[in-house]
Amino acid sequence: MPDQAIPLQPVLLSGGSGTRLWPLSREAYPKQFLPLAGERTMLQDTWLRVAGLAGDAAPLVVANEEHRFLAAEQLRQVGVEHAAIVLEPVGRNTAPAIAAAALQAMAGGDDPLLLVLPSDHVVRDADAFRDAVRAASPAAAEGALVTFGIVPESPETGFGYIQAEPGEGVRRVLRFVEKPDADTARQYLEAGGYYWNSGMFLLRASRYLEELGRFRPDILAAVRAAFDAAKRDGDFVRLDKDAFAASPSDSIDYAVMEKTDRAMVLPVDIGWNDVGSWSALWDVSEQDGDGNARHGDVIAVDSRNSYAYARRLVALVGVEDLVVVETDDAVLVARKDKVQQVKDVVARLKADQRSHAVLHREVHRPWGSYDSVDQDDGFQVKRIKVKPGARLSLQSHKHRAEHWIVVRGTARVTRDNDVFDLHANQSAYIPLGARHRLENPGTGMLELIEVQSGDYLGEDDIVRYEDVYGRA
Amino acid sequence: MPDQAIPLQPVLLSGGSGTRLWPLSREAYPKQFLPLAGERTMLQDTWLRVAGLAGDAAPLVVANEEHRFLAAEQLRQVGVEHAAIVLEPVGRNTAPAIAAAALQAMAGGDDPLLLVLPSDHVVRDADAFRDAVRAASPAAAEGALVTFGIVPESPETGFGYIQAEPGEGVRRVLRFVEKPDADTARQYLEAGGYYWNSGMFLLRASRYLEELGRFRPDILAAVRAAFDAAKRDGDFVRLDKDAFAASPSDSIDYAVMEKTDRAMVLPVDIGWNDVGSWSALWDVSEQDGDGNARHGDVIAVDSRNSYAYARRLVALVGVEDLVVVETDDAVLVARKDKVQQVKDVVARLKADQRSHAVLHREVHRPWGSYDSVDQDDGFQVKRIKVKPGARLSLQSHKHRAEHWIVVRGTARVTRDNDVFDLHANQSAYIPLGARHRLENPGTGMLELIEVQSGDYLGEDDIVRYEDVYGRA
Repeated sequence: MPDQAIPLQPVLLSGGSGTRLWPLSREAYPKQFLPLAGERTMLQDTWLRVAGLAGDAAPLVVANEEHRFLAAEQLRQVGVEHAAIVLEPVGRNTAPAIAAAALQAMAGGDDPLLLVLPSDHVVRDADAFRDAVRAASPAAAEGALVTFGIVPESPETGFGYIQAEPGEGVRRVLRFVEKPDADTARQYLEAGGYYWNSGMFLLRASRYLEELGRFRPDILAAVRAAFDAAKRDGDFVRLDKDAFAASPSDSIDYAVMEKTDRAMVLPVDIGWNDVGSWSALWDVSEQDGDGNARHGDVIAVDSRNSYAYARRLVALVGVEDLVVVETDDAVLVARKDKVQQVKDVVARLKADQRSHAVLHREVHRPWGSYDSVDQDDGFQVKRIKVKPGARLSLQSHKHRAEHWIVVRGTARVTRDNDVFDLHANQSAYIPLGARHRLENPGTGMLELIEVQSGDYLGEDDIVRYEDVYGRA
Repeated sequence: MPDQAIPLQPVLLSGGSGTRLWPLSREAYPKQFLPLAGERTMLQDTWLRVAGLAGDAAPLVVANEEHRFLAAEQLRQVGVEHAAIVLEPVGRNTAPAIAAAALQAMAGGDDPLLLVLPSDHVVRDADAFRDAVRAASPAAAEGALVTFGIVPESPETGFGYIQAEPGEGVRRVLRFVEKPDADTARQYLEAGGYYWNSGMFLLRASRYLEELGRFRPDILAAVRAAFDAAKRDGDFVRLDKDAFAASPSDSIDYAVMEKTDRAMVLPVDIGWNDVGSWSALWDVSEQDGDGNARHGDVIAVDSRNSYAYARRLVALVGVEDLVVVETDDAVLVARKDKVQQVKDVVARLKADQRSHAVLHREVHRPWGSYDSVDQDDGFQVKRIKVKPGARLSLQSHKHRAEHWIVVRGTARVTRDNDVFDLHANQSAYIPLGARHRLENPGTGMLELIEVQSGDYLGEDDIVRYEDVYGRA
């Protein structure tokens, strides 16, 4: 059994920007980092689903440069101390991302089986999935590029399909087909032998690179150059920006799977959902007797088959088949069968350069987060959270003074030449122009209220003198 | 022309609690005080609509005790320095309210024509309405109780109807009819001679009391006792609580109009709308080419015939015939033809003793307002606005300390034995237990951020030593 000898390396693809679940998912904090379908985030669930298969291997993550601290911290929260995190300076779709993962996986001299997993899918039957991975391993070890095809439950038009040879278990792929129209999808379902393309793969690192080199040598060359020139920074592998940007953008399906004669598919029935829209999230959410999925403080009167997410209070009256998502700074109300048009809202927000497309009101930083809870001409109030041991940069502002009131934990404050500690219910004033720094010397979260006062209050009014996160 | 000699006294009925327009309208700040159909509030518009008819008379207002500062200030904003404001300690419907107004109007020895107006209706054609008041005056002066009947535009089932004698101008009422079913409403519309009961009246003060005494002497006696024992406090006439509470609750229609043989009606076509529901508000709101009425930051994609009110950002996608109302602490999403069930939401909130039924997040006080912009275990952040010249009570708290940071205007702070002024970007600390007072000695609004810190942060943790608003 050759697969016994070959290690398994889970690869979590975390490059998505998740506009389809706006306003919960935003470019700076997209859906894989949100606890949308359970208590843990989808990235965390994706890892925990397969951790047991990988021996003591840590996950290999391919993520957007912007999300590096999020990815690292979320994995740390589920016990992963050192994942290799390959950072994409720009998104180039899955073919280059998996190539970078393969190069990283082989860097130590190994040639593992890569279990490539999008980090924003739901798999209800994790046991069945792990069984499937085991079942696919011999073929992958022998050089097949194995994809997991989802046994279709309905004539979905939102997925690509894979037609398999008749048979049992791992089989040859006859063809990949694009997202079909409704009639075609119904024919596939009736005919049998067609499976949803899940974007999950099991393939040997060297074999993938070999096939990629055969069909898309341009992609392989660009990624190799980006990887060779990568900068390593702790667990982060920062691909070279210019080299990686020079790679064509393409999916593994187009670049390799549709062209190679080594493509195989294992049909699986694992409770899979790609959570690719609000209606998909409604599908996988727990529903009450009226078919309503409710998250938070939701009152439903005479309402059915709707999804409601509330930060504050949401009341539904007489509605049906709606999606209502209420966040700190934006509310979406959409008909459930029109949720694909949510992307039009995001596009409009981006065109208008509005932050709602990119940032949540609460903005995450490597040291913690800030949330602008109130603002008006000349002032802004922020709630600031600083993680234990974390420190903000040594900085000053040209246009604003700041009042800090600690409400939880301990703050160590540097203000020009002074350094002092503040505890809950103590405050400090940072005059305009003063060099200052905030850090949390404690073991619990530090929370403070910052009241800014000044004629300009933008985030870009900052001079950084020193920064432990490399932002000075 | 006997009406030339008789003064006209507009009476604004402002007793409504407006649950049908929740969450914008709430018990402590109901719809008549909101700028729902224009830039001014409905109370203000109601007064300005008829001010020109009243010579130099000020309005006579009948309001809920709880709303006295709101009513007085809103009238002051439109130039009314001294309205008599009769305060109802409890609501008893319109028959007692109008009786109290009649007694107040006659207190100086006059016997004016009372122009009785609900303060939460829209009248688009104010000229036509003023013409109608002039046209009704002779009959009212001669002793008729004249009601204004709205020429119906559709077979509404939400209003009572008035059947008038055939003819022109002011006519005898044949009968009042209850809210009809749809078939009956259609018959009324086809038959003609039926008008919507608008709740607006023109009647002589003494004649109303005479008729009330004839048909409901119990109501008249109770109101007279409440009025005789009333306490006068500036412009406020505080009806005696026990006496007024002893009055039966009844409408002028049931108590008087349906019984008297002096009821007359003047049909009018004045662009009237009672704004009695979200769908009625949509009707009177300006709509875009897709039939959407949008207030605030609303993005509509593929959506039609909907009403959206946004404090932050609201995005509609693929919806039709919806009402979406987004406030600081609650969001309503209702089908436009089911909005009458909004009252079920309010009832549930009241049953659960939730403040959303009564208060907005921004709470109005005689001295200004406060808005709880953030809170969590052990702390709360409020934005406080203090009107020029206003002062809060001298007070102390048993469970919380407070940090005040002035962000606009000047604060005069009393803290135990010290009194000092703070300007924008200055702060003060109020230790737990300290006697303190905040006032605005300036001519512009004072705004400050208050950060409370303590183990209990309820509004009821307050000891008042002195209060200019009589709350000590």
